[in-house]
This record gives sequence, C-alpha cells and structure tokens, in this order.
Amino acid sequence: MDDRLKKQLDFIVEIDKIKAIIRKSKLFDGSRLENDAEHSWHLAMMAILLSEYANAPIDLLKTIKMVLIHDIVEIDAGDIIVYQKDPSKTDEKEAAAANRIFGLLPDDQRSELLELWREFEEKRTPEANFAGAIDRLEPVMQNYFTDAYAWREHHITAARVLETNRGKIGAGSAKLWEYAESIINECIKKGLIG
Amino acid sequence: MDDRLKKQLDFIVEIDKIKAIIRKSKLFDGSRLENDAEHSWHLAMMAILLSEYANAPIDLLKTIKMVLIHDIVEIDAGDIIVYQKDPSKTDEKEAAAANRIFGLLPDDQRSELLELWREFEEKRTPEANFAGAIDRLEPVMQNYFTDAYAWREHHITAARVLETNRGKIGAGSAKLWEYAESIINECIKKGLIG
Repeated sequence: MDDRLKKQLDFIVEIDKIKAIIRKSKLFDGSRLENDAEHSWHLAMMAILLSEYANAPIDLLKTIKMVLIHDIVEIDAGDIIVYQKDPSKTDEKEAAAANRIFGLLPDDQRSELLELWREFEEKRTPEANFAGAIDRLEPVMQNYFTDAYAWREHHITAARVLETNRGKIGAGSAKLWEYAESIINECIKKGLIG
Repeated sequence: MDDRLKKQLDFIVEIDKIKAIIRKSKLFDGSRLENDAEHSWHLAMMAILLSEYANAPIDLLKTIKMVLIHDIVEIDAGDIIVYQKDPSKTDEKEAAAANRIFGLLPDDQRSELLELWREFEEKRTPEANFAGAIDRLEPVMQNYFTDAYAWREHHITAARVLETNRGKIGAGSAKLWEYAESIINECIKKGLIG
C-alpha cells in the first residue's frame, strides 16, 4: 500500500476513538449520554437542514466539514462542558491534540483540517459562527427534552445558560437563537433551572 | 415558531433514533458494536479523505449528504447485514420508512433527501457508487481489526465476503477494493474465515 493511503487509513482508524468520548448531554429520549461521533453526525444533519437561517450566507460543504471534525481533538483533550471551560488551559491541550491527530494525515489534508479546526475555534467567519451556533443548539434542545438534565447535573444557572447561548447561537443565527431562547425560558418557567 | 422550522426540528429530533440502531460490526478496538449515527459520521469522514480514489469524479457535498442520510430508514426498517439482505423485502420496508421519516420535512427538503436516498440505493451515479464503496469498506476494516468478528458471528464464508465486497467496493473505487481485498485475504490466511 502506498504511503499516502496508509496515512489516510491510519487517521480513519485513529478517529474511531471519538466514539468513546462521552458528552454531558443525553440523547433526546433521555436513555443515555451522547458521544462525540453521534453529536458530530447530528450537527452535520443540522447544517444541511438549517443553513437557511445563518445570519450570513455560508459555504455548506465547508461548514459540514467543520462540524464533522470539530471534536476530534477531544480524543486527547477530553470533553469539557462549555460552561466550565478555562479557555487558556483547553486551548493549549486542544492545539496539541490537533497537531498530533491531524498530523497523521498527508500534508495537504493535515493543513486543510487543521485550518478548518482553527477557523471553527476562532469564530471569525460565517461558517464558524453558524457551526458554533448549531454546536450549542443541539445540547440546548437535548436539555429541553430531558428536563434540563445536563444543566441540573452540572449546576448551571439560568443566567449562565442564557448568557452563554445567546452569544454563541446568536452570533451564527438570530432565528435559531430566538427558538433556543424560547425553550430555555420554558425550562426556567417549569423551575428546572433558576 | 413558524411551520417550516417546526418541521425541520421535528425531523432533527426524530433522526436521533438512529443512535439506537446497532450494527453488526464492532468498533476498531473491539469494545462494542457500532451504531448507525457513528457509522454515518465515519463514512462522511472517509468521503472527505478518500474521494480522490473514486473511479469517476464525484461531487463531494452530494456524497457526504448521501452517506449522512443513507441509514435513516433503518429507524423503521432495522439494520440487516449486507450478506443476508432479501432485496425485495428490505426495499419495501425501507421505502415506507423513507416516505414516513423524510416526509416530516418541508416539501423541498423532503424531496432532496428522498432523491439522495434513492440515488444511493440505485447505485447508478459515481456519487452513489463511491458512497456504497465506503459503506462497505468501513465494515471490512472493522472485521480486519476485530479478528473477523461480524463475519464469524454471522457465518459468512470467505467466498461471500470477497464476492459481495468486490462488487460493491470495486464499483466505487478500484484502489480501495485493492486495499480491501488485501485485508480480506489476510483474514483468510489467518484462518479467521474460510
């Protein structure tokens, strides 16, 4: 087998490990916690179906690639709930992870995926902002459907939920933030978070 | 909330169920069986990384959409190992599932995803053939890394493994079939399948 294909297949085997990275939110039916591969698949489906609500026009293929790869760094860096992230610490760990894991690929593909991952992290383009919006919308919906499971489990206040998601979802899609805000407010009204 | 967004979100919640559809092959580390959401994510990554090996040029966005949605019908129709499929029975069940599930979407999106799913099933375009090739390559690799677990569990002969995958992988990518054939032959040499 030639070296290029070998590198690509080694990477494809390595990233299987994100199926063992367990997130903080439960599936919509509440049966168990979600893992990163499932989450990434769901975000790609949301990108396909909801891109019309992006605040600015987006390149759909680029956005899908971004959400498919955005959590691969968690193979080394682990999953941290957004409300408890210490940006300086996670940045360092995740950057090292990105270099190691994307570094398994042939140079051209390593550069492409590293760039896409950095763009997602920096949130300076319409694609990164929209990807970031759906990355937050999915767990908001999961909390809504599971009696605010992850928010209660991790003692997240209503104010923090509103503040964090307003910024992150609103930056990508005012329309999706309007929906997210309405279901967060329902959770508050029911007394699930306060 | 307007009717269009409501339909899109209802679909997004409904398809969460593919996370509970368990496949026949194990993860590369052998720890457990894979589910359809994880499988679909992995195929999308393989499409991104391996499209250069398609027998004919492919539209990558279309191919990614195809692999992301190809197993959604299994929410109603269940997962059947490729070697034991009764085409007439599964076709009927899966077509009904496609109509029900994609039918949750607004008309334009329902049509798009139904068309993509039919195209994948019919295997008459370069995108469908390449999507079909990686849909078979992943379980061949999973079997290779887990001592032929699924093939042995379901009593699949070496001849069947070679015949089925030669057709399906070869139709999408001669290069990837060359690799797949080499690892199937390793399993045969080790006496794992015969």
